[in-house]
Amino acid sequence: MDIEQFRKAGYQAIDRICEHFYALQEKPVMSQVKPGYLSQLVPATPPEKGEDFQIIADDFQRCIMPGITHWTHPSFFAYFPTANSFEGILGDLYASSVSTPGFNWVASPAATELESIVLDWAACLLGLSSVFKNTSRVGGGVIQTTASDSVLTAVVAARSLYQRNHPDVPLESLVIYTTTQTHSLGAKAGLILGIKVKALEVKLEDQLCLRGEDLEKALEKDTNAGLRPFILIATVGTTSSGAIDDIPEIGEVVKSYPDLWIHIDAAWAGCAFAAPELREKLYVKEINETAHSICVNFHKWGLVNFACSVLWVRDRQNLIEALDITPAFLRTKEGDSGVVTDYRNWHLSLGRRFRSLKLWFVLRSYGVEGFRNRIRRSIKLNEGFVELIKQSPNLTLVTEPSLALTVFRLAPKSHLDSQSSYSLAQLNELNKAYHASLASRSDIMLTQTNINGIFCIRLAVGSPFTEEKHIQQAYNVLEEEAKSALQLWKQGHAANSEAQV
Amino acid sequence: MDIEQFRKAGYQAIDRICEHFYALQEKPVMSQVKPGYLSQLVPATPPEKGEDFQIIADDFQRCIMPGITHWTHPSFFAYFPTANSFEGILGDLYASSVSTPGFNWVASPAATELESIVLDWAACLLGLSSVFKNTSRVGGGVIQTTASDSVLTAVVAARSLYQRNHPDVPLESLVIYTTTQTHSLGAKAGLILGIKVKALEVKLEDQLCLRGEDLEKALEKDTNAGLRPFILIATVGTTSSGAIDDIPEIGEVVKSYPDLWIHIDAAWAGCAFAAPELREKLYVKEINETAHSICVNFHKWGLVNFACSVLWVRDRQNLIEALDITPAFLRTKEGDSGVVTDYRNWHLSLGRRFRSLKLWFVLRSYGVEGFRNRIRRSIKLNEGFVELIKQSPNLTLVTEPSLALTVFRLAPKSHLDSQSSYSLAQLNELNKAYHASLASRSDIMLTQTNINGIFCIRLAVGSPFTEEKHIQQAYNVLEEEAKSALQLWKQGHAANSEAQV
Repeated sequence: MDIEQFRKAGYQAIDRICEHFYALQEKPVMSQVKPGYLSQLVPATPPEKGEDFQIIADDFQRCIMPGITHWTHPSFFAYFPTANSFEGILGDLYASSVSTPGFNWVASPAATELESIVLDWAACLLGLSSVFKNTSRVGGGVIQTTASDSVLTAVVAARSLYQRNHPDVPLESLVIYTTTQTHSLGAKAGLILGIKVKALEVKLEDQLCLRGEDLEKALEKDTNAGLRPFILIATVGTTSSGAIDDIPEIGEVVKSYPDLWIHIDAAWAGCAFAAPELREKLYVKEINETAHSICVNFHKWGLVNFACSVLWVRDRQNLIEALDITPAFLRTKEGDSGVVTDYRNWHLSLGRRFRSLKLWFVLRSYGVEGFRNRIRRSIKLNEGFVELIKQSPNLTLVTEPSLALTVFRLAPKSHLDSQSSYSLAQLNELNKAYHASLASRSDIMLTQTNINGIFCIRLAVGSPFTEEKHIQQAYNVLEEEAKSALQLWKQGHAANSEAQV
Repeated sequence: MDIEQFRKAGYQAIDRICEHFYALQEKPVMSQVKPGYLSQLVPATPPEKGEDFQIIADDFQRCIMPGITHWTHPSFFAYFPTANSFEGILGDLYASSVSTPGFNWVASPAATELESIVLDWAACLLGLSSVFKNTSRVGGGVIQTTASDSVLTAVVAARSLYQRNHPDVPLESLVIYTTTQTHSLGAKAGLILGIKVKALEVKLEDQLCLRGEDLEKALEKDTNAGLRPFILIATVGTTSSGAIDDIPEIGEVVKSYPDLWIHIDAAWAGCAFAAPELREKLYVKEINETAHSICVNFHKWGLVNFACSVLWVRDRQNLIEALDITPAFLRTKEGDSGVVTDYRNWHLSLGRRFRSLKLWFVLRSYGVEGFRNRIRRSIKLNEGFVELIKQSPNLTLVTEPSLALTVFRLAPKSHLDSQSSYSLAQLNELNKAYHASLASRSDIMLTQTNINGIFCIRLAVGSPFTEEKHIQQAYNVLEEEAKSALQLWKQGHAANSEAQV
């Protein structure tokens, strides 16, 4: 493909992306293909001769598009949102055109310097302390691929720091603390690193947040047993229910445990720090005081296309001391002199995309005000949904709604009052059937979760295209399926009762 | 930005990318900015109000472009090439438009299924055994971000397998084997995982490749000392000099050490497997017989824009047993039934970009034939460069050229004959000055390396725009700077001699 063929194919790609977004609302949210569909459409071996690009572009529409689940669809309420903005797409496009592996400053100074500047912008946006800014020259921010990478990097840095301070403590004694509500990234970090993970219990009556008292008890018990908890992965906005660990109480406890690194996983909820009125509830002040590291995924709620997981640290030296290896072929005069940042020493990989560009595009195009308003809008839409649930005869909240996330289940209120009709096991069974019927629909997408043994359904608002009418539609679908599920359940139980007779 | 504003900005982006490629040859290869340049151009805080996108797009040209080092420039010979093809850019653009985090099948079936199919295509292209294909349902391929991620994943899988087979062996006894020529990713994997790394010595007379005999001696010695080497990171095409470890001899040795996982890092040279005439030299047959895992970065020499590091494994179960954590919110009926691949269990992160699309675009647009020819073309250009070096009075090869990589140094042949004029230390000093003068130029970019104490310069061919004339120009520059460096050196030494008198 030469430059003019690229121009033609590029225009077409832009046009087709426009068509895609115009038609998005009419498409099924969840792909309707069956496992293995693509092997029916694509040959098993590559072509010997090159093909005309028009055929390839058409095959994208024909073969790939039907297999896409539309995370940007206004009726996508599953998992957490995955950002998709026009500014993000354009940022990635420009970045692709100047591909640079970015592992040191000289590889493309703009890539390193823009990342340093724009992560300071993002720290301003979110109300983070200036100690986390790159201009502090002590702390700083770096873009990682995912929150899993961010936490893995934090755990490695924390372990390395702990081992430098306590060279005699064997690796077997080290423990990563999470809670039962921490994202699986905590357990996976332990698996990868071969380090014990302890998930502290949290209670439904505490809205599933980690309390200082429970942390303190665990620390006392484990320390007495010879274990050495060296990092706590605390969460501000858990995946299951949006729970917010009690950072003020945690901050008090760790005053007596200065070796415990506090990593704040705010992968989803961190973008909401942008709204000043939410900061108190999200403990931004206490995070600023307590956290050794913080992760916020702008590729979730932050309008920046995947991947853009930002990790801020209070002391960059903890990353560099844990991760710096500079072989001869990577040495540069700028790196040796220490005047520039070589981001390869701030994460696990060597190469990296020029990802700050899309974050820069988004923050400039939206401005602080526009970014905040997008967050507020999602929360307001979710509040509307919560009102509907509260009035529903069949659906019940399981936890307090958190920002733009609601966790609920099918539990007829008339039955709840009597407390007699359904056991927890029965309600779980009912809700599994209910979720299965929802999952088989193409016009809405939601995911399930399990909270302290309760099978629940999550609704997370976040697509930029979601409006009040989609919330109302979602509620209508939920009620409709709830009635069917209840009816089937009653029929089944009636049949069972008969059979037992 | 609405859809029509995106169309306009998108067309402009495509036009500007075309302009960029038309003008590329005239641009300096290496960015000429000084550290900190961007903070003079970009404010320290984000704008409160959103800005017009035209201003942002213009700032990309004004502020960012001067800070870009052009890895696609025809006179870029540093490091290894970073792929940049129009098909790769378009693949990434389409992928951005349907952003999907891809951690399980249902997240977008097309993303998972295309990855499975197109990595089988890539295995065909490279002559890999069908045991590594996804259709084998035993082995399989997965796209990782970088070769560092690939090796880290392989080491974690190997460690987990070893520990399952030998639950009583303490972590402290485990050892990762590399050679002194292995990329820093080996040492970094050890740092990250807290596992010992032993770099086996290799000899210049063996062209810096690991021989079976040396591996065997190390295994015997370490095993007797109670250590447990559980993985060898062997390289086919090292970064320093393109050295190729002796896989046939390694294969013989490991017959007696079945616990030793063999990871083949062919991040750069693996793309050359596409040319059947190179496979014998690159030991593809023996890799097929011996390797537990293989990494090939299509984002280096393989025409696919960053990131596209492919990891193939002989037994996918080794990845899944090491890495699978499936919390409630990630469970799906397809995943539970085992009929689909959930790629999150094949790597360290959870989320992932839809990266197979750009690989699919490239392999279809080029075809096997076109891909092979691009590889052959780079090698032929390098052969031309080698001929020039062989005839040069001043420049000398340090190792045998490897594929598209030449390692040489400034060492006047007349002086070499007499062996008297320059010690190794003097030659190193001379070459450091020589490289510094080359590094200060804007019309060419090369990197240095250090091979068993010899300071050398590397020239790696790989840009799709490099032609014979650029090779000749590079040689002319090298000779010109060589003469200046020699003259300065002689003057310096004359002055020193005088001073000593």
